[in-house]
Amino acid sequence: MEKILVIGAVASGTKAAAKIKRENPDAQVVVVTKDKHISYAGCGLPYFIGGVIEEEKELVVKTPEDFKEITDIDVYIEHEALEIDTESKSVKVKDLKTEEEKVYTYDKLVIATGASPFVPPIEGKDLQGVYPVRTVSNALEVRKLVDEGKVKKAVVVGGGFIGLEVAENLHERNIEVSLVELIDHILPPFDEEIALYAQNYMKEEGVNIYTGEKVLSIKGQDGKVQKVITDKREIEADLVIMSVGVRANTQLAQQIGVELGVTRAIKVNEYMETNLQDVYAVGDCAENVNLVTEQPAWYPMGSTANKMGRIAGINISKSEKDHLKGVLGTTIVKLFNLNAAKTGLSERDAKKAGFEIETVLVPANDKAHYYPGYRQIITKLIADKNTHKVLGAQVIGEGVVDKPIDIMATAITFGAKVEDLEKLDLAYAPPFSMAMSSTILAANVMRNKLTGRVHGISPIELNERLNELQIVDTRDGGSYIIGTIPGAIHIPSEELITRIDELDKNKETVLVCKVGKNAFLSYIKLRKLGFDVKILEGGTCAYPYEKE
Amino acid sequence: MEKILVIGAVASGTKAAAKIKRENPDAQVVVVTKDKHISYAGCGLPYFIGGVIEEEKELVVKTPEDFKEITDIDVYIEHEALEIDTESKSVKVKDLKTEEEKVYTYDKLVIATGASPFVPPIEGKDLQGVYPVRTVSNALEVRKLVDEGKVKKAVVVGGGFIGLEVAENLHERNIEVSLVELIDHILPPFDEEIALYAQNYMKEEGVNIYTGEKVLSIKGQDGKVQKVITDKREIEADLVIMSVGVRANTQLAQQIGVELGVTRAIKVNEYMETNLQDVYAVGDCAENVNLVTEQPAWYPMGSTANKMGRIAGINISKSEKDHLKGVLGTTIVKLFNLNAAKTGLSERDAKKAGFEIETVLVPANDKAHYYPGYRQIITKLIADKNTHKVLGAQVIGEGVVDKPIDIMATAITFGAKVEDLEKLDLAYAPPFSMAMSSTILAANVMRNKLTGRVHGISPIELNERLNELQIVDTRDGGSYIIGTIPGAIHIPSEELITRIDELDKNKETVLVCKVGKNAFLSYIKLRKLGFDVKILEGGTCAYPYEKE
Repeated sequence: MEKILVIGAVASGTKAAAKIKRENPDAQVVVVTKDKHISYAGCGLPYFIGGVIEEEKELVVKTPEDFKEITDIDVYIEHEALEIDTESKSVKVKDLKTEEEKVYTYDKLVIATGASPFVPPIEGKDLQGVYPVRTVSNALEVRKLVDEGKVKKAVVVGGGFIGLEVAENLHERNIEVSLVELIDHILPPFDEEIALYAQNYMKEEGVNIYTGEKVLSIKGQDGKVQKVITDKREIEADLVIMSVGVRANTQLAQQIGVELGVTRAIKVNEYMETNLQDVYAVGDCAENVNLVTEQPAWYPMGSTANKMGRIAGINISKSEKDHLKGVLGTTIVKLFNLNAAKTGLSERDAKKAGFEIETVLVPANDKAHYYPGYRQIITKLIADKNTHKVLGAQVIGEGVVDKPIDIMATAITFGAKVEDLEKLDLAYAPPFSMAMSSTILAANVMRNKLTGRVHGISPIELNERLNELQIVDTRDGGSYIIGTIPGAIHIPSEELITRIDELDKNKETVLVCKVGKNAFLSYIKLRKLGFDVKILEGGTCAYPYEKE
Repeated sequence: MEKILVIGAVASGTKAAAKIKRENPDAQVVVVTKDKHISYAGCGLPYFIGGVIEEEKELVVKTPEDFKEITDIDVYIEHEALEIDTESKSVKVKDLKTEEEKVYTYDKLVIATGASPFVPPIEGKDLQGVYPVRTVSNALEVRKLVDEGKVKKAVVVGGGFIGLEVAENLHERNIEVSLVELIDHILPPFDEEIALYAQNYMKEEGVNIYTGEKVLSIKGQDGKVQKVITDKREIEADLVIMSVGVRANTQLAQQIGVELGVTRAIKVNEYMETNLQDVYAVGDCAENVNLVTEQPAWYPMGSTANKMGRIAGINISKSEKDHLKGVLGTTIVKLFNLNAAKTGLSERDAKKAGFEIETVLVPANDKAHYYPGYRQIITKLIADKNTHKVLGAQVIGEGVVDKPIDIMATAITFGAKVEDLEKLDLAYAPPFSMAMSSTILAANVMRNKLTGRVHGISPIELNERLNELQIVDTRDGGSYIIGTIPGAIHIPSEELITRIDELDKNKETVLVCKVGKNAFLSYIKLRKLGFDVKILEGGTCAYPYEKE
């Protein structure tokens, strides 16, 4: 009878354990975790704080008792693995309630120790009222403070997904929320123009956002937090959420010589095997491969953790040999009524990886424009200029973004080219899509750009080169007043030819309209006249910088 | 200067024309249509009748004047093409307003004559109050009758998408609606168990549905419709919608020897070329290829028509050579709050095409189970037993079905295997998906079945073999009372071993629970005891036949 020991019991640990037992009912499978909760929904914690998820029990997919009943596997909670001995194939475990030390032997070991919030070593980080949001216990404590009305002002440190979701949820509970992010924009994995779009949205919803700002210390009185000190200001706070990122928990693995990858997470091959015989690693503590670059990457996410757990389970039980070649780092976040999603490489990542790229930014509707309740979404597509392969995509807007991002994630998985995306036979009916879906439209625009049919300029580039360019807003008067690109001349399309003398033919010219589509008429005319002309991609509606 | 004449101006005709002009601004492009409206949203007509889409102008994407302004193309409405002369490369066209006949010459001809409703030659089909729903004019007339309160009872003949959508929209306007369908279930392209699920739903919403029933005649008085006579009953009606299907409009093309395909639509190659030099065909009048079978098929849909138009446009303007290898017949429909979608082959189609197949039926949630507003969806997956290739999928439920069907359509396009579906890196956050999305879950279940890990039985097979099988409902008492499979014995999982004597080991046994997941515990136990046992796929919740 084979003995399998699993260390860790959130997503991948319980998944691996259950799969092994299901494939091989005679195996003895034991799971230990130092946490009080198992199999919980880490991604649900911000919503529990906000009260969107009302009950603690909703967060916990299974209790140890449930799990035992369904799988016949023993899970020991509040049991911390202290030391692994690969010689005797045993693990020393401490029962945190009784302080008792026990030894569990194994034939196969699964390390699923997850990741922990990184808390920067600043003054005040241990004050009362300073929390990470990683475990059910964290969320319970924060929720309790909020429920008791003890939080008027909160500071969230870190503009990643969890930080932003917590900011939204606290704001919805009538707390004044400020968010501080070290880099230039929130949503670090996203490209700047998409991230700034989200940032503007969050600000309009009433969250104070300070980017490019460093938290220096946290001050308190009588052990309780009072304010956050940044390099630019002081912000009052009864609650501080530290959410600057997570680090893979690898200490235990490192003790026995398990190799780490370049991302500092545990290196595993496609079978979830570490460099040590009979030792597997899965979930947030282990490294992934990016399918596009084929290089190591680290995506600590529940969706990937579940797959890794399942694959380790299949391989350990030897019922088949299964593998995970890589993932795309697909992610999604809801911020108030705005949705933002990403798959594959960002523009920044693609350049860093050495690709010669083309990008487009294409606004569209998520449903037929005549069907009630349609909303706008903006698709950013990143493609390889030479092979036309789709490298990555980002979609943002109040409309449906998970569908297009999943379509593109699927396409990228199979090495789709832009020309393939154009021809996808996607489901169309007015309540669900435009006849030409947003994804197909974005692929059409990308192909027009790749083949030189249309020359576009991205909002990022336009913003950087504002002073060198001749910018023409081609919209009618009314729209123009609402706000345009700084320095733009206003010449509606129909007046272009009569007012052509106002333009300098020797200057690189950028045409601007609402979504980047109607400027095309002026584009054709100026091209014919020999102008060096480009269209602002995504138009004013996707331009996230200051307007005038 | 090349002259291009396009006959037809809904989706594909206007798309082709616009693309040609955009690629080649010097071309002279002319569009003629016998219709009053161009570029309208045929799929929106049922919603216009229901008042969901309020204004006529919302249905019409562009008027001829809009189209002229944007594209510089002349569109002549109410101009019927009567005759083509391929020798002189000219088309005789009749202006339906003035009765005048004109001749247009062309270098390239695009046939985009669409499809027309098939009206069976029965008595009473021309009575006042009998309408197809294909053109804006049809919809305007029906809407007017409804708005004036002249319709109390309506009969819809035909249970396809348009018929069902019209039935829903009329019902929402407080009209008593009966729908008559010739075959055994509504939604003919879907497999029986999915179609029956939708049928039960429509009935619960209050639509009378009569399937396996033939309309023999329509009776009226003073030229006005009064009732519909079927082979089983008479149904009173002030309004009859004839929606039994459409036929490709090919007469004009046939006159000049354009070849039709096996589907009786115009045969085109991947470049949208017909058998005649310089004659192209696009949209609903032309045939497609099914990407899975690589055989001719006919999918008259707006999404495909737009692609065909674009490709013909590119090829005619010679800016590139573009092609459409085939489509999947992806379709979707919203019926009250139920959504149903399909891509690739149905089980029936796959068998007919000679595949040895496996199917699964897997209920899941569209969002995290703890996130408010989640809904159930049921995924049917059809795969090739030998290659494990995904051949088709159907998804139904109150939850999001367009996303999973589009993911699977994309995967099938690239020849995905079940093992590939399992590993897709899809966007996960609680408001958008379960950590293991419904598609991945369905692929996991399919793999378990393909590898012989679990033996399932489909609702269709169970329903056919009710009398031969020993059926055990493994749910707890409460659920059992609500309704179970006819003839089922009730033995909750925990009582199975103590009550094992109640079961006959020599009889093929089927285990039943709510969604097909919890029966697995009993399954393991009975397997160990040597029973020949299967699990009802999809459980009671996906079982669409009579319960007791």
